Amino acid sequence: MASTRTDDSHPRRSARASSAVLSATRELIAELPYPRITVEGIAARAGVGKQTIYRWWPSKGAVVVDALAARNPDDLTFPDTGDLRADMAAILRATEEEFASPEFDALYRALTIESLQDPELRRIIDERMLGPQFAAARVRFRSAREAGQLRTDVEDSVVFEMFMAPLLHRWQTGAHPLGAAHAEAIADLAIRALSPEQ
Amino acid sequence: MASTRTDDSHPRRSARASSAVLSATRELIAELPYPRITVEGIAARAGVGKQTIYRWWPSKGAVVVDALAARNPDDLTFPDTGDLRADMAAILRATEEEFASPEFDALYRALTIESLQDPELRRIIDERMLGPQFAAARVRFRSAREAGQLRTDVEDSVVFEMFMAPLLHRWQTGAHPLGAAHAEAIADLAIRALSPEQ
Repeated sequence: MASTRTDDSHPRRSARASSAVLSATRELIAELPYPRITVEGIAARAGVGKQTIYRWWPSKGAVVVDALAARNPDDLTFPDTGDLRADMAAILRATEEEFASPEFDALYRALTIESLQDPELRRIIDERMLGPQFAAARVRFRSAREAGQLRTDVEDSVVFEMFMAPLLHRWQTGAHPLGAAHAEAIADLAIRALSPEQ
Repeated sequence: MASTRTDDSHPRRSARASSAVLSATRELIAELPYPRITVEGIAARAGVGKQTIYRWWPSKGAVVVDALAARNPDDLTFPDTGDLRADMAAILRATEEEFASPEFDALYRALTIESLQDPELRRIIDERMLGPQFAAARVRFRSAREAGQLRTDVEDSVVFEMFMAPLLHRWQTGAHPLGAAHAEAIADLAIRALSPEQ
């Protein structure tokens, strides 16, 4: 019997199908607003059956998170020029720019809504995006401590929050403008809070 | 024809009905999880018609926000003992404690979800809760500047974020524990970032 479903019981085909699903999802993210992306649409674009997707991912949100997480592995390395302030300012500027784009804003807002309602998606976002991002930040913080640019008595989770939380808060409330000036102000203040005593 | 609807065309009756709606909503917030609160349920408890509620509030979320905002006017004054660090640490400790309660967590999570999906509710939250809260913070910041405890070259919106955003970020991601130790650490770091140069 002819079938359009990929035979994903074979490991190599399985990897091929999974990669097709992620590529199709990335294409759809660029083309459609999040609510119009469906598991059916992803399956059709990837040339696999819907069941193949549900075998690996519990929800549309989970596929989208995976597609975003796998997009660019460089996103998961923090720059290290030897100057913590400059590197964190660069990350903050790039992130503020990303958040200022209407497409990214819409996508991130939709994922935030779903994750607040769905603990399983929250776990996946943590495992695939936030966890690796935090791990990359910790590598940069360790190097900054070795260079004497970062206090040794503040936990990494708090260091991360001092740099990143103001930006996310500003994006979420929408009450004050995002942009390079804000990124630089936050980098200055966080560095001042977190530099070792002179 | 007999009717259970309050005649809200009369200003005094109108104020009485509005206050009954807010009291009923506060009672229901204490008794039920947010998804089980309905405009019908609020109307029944307040002894008014559903239409009376919809005349003044566009949605259930809007009534709930109004009920929470009107709850305790003292919430909208920041303490001023003359010591900015101590006062902000007290606010942060109280807020972390509030967020750590499962009832508050559930309610705030539900409102965050709705507000991310509903720009009108976002506007109401801004007008009735965040705006007045920020205005109260600015009064405290002005007094701190006069006492020489706060830099004069950082915008109030950024000062506010340095103190409050780490807590909200931690609550939302759920990746690290809330509590008094975190509140004290953030107060220390924000004060270090925001104190005038010695």
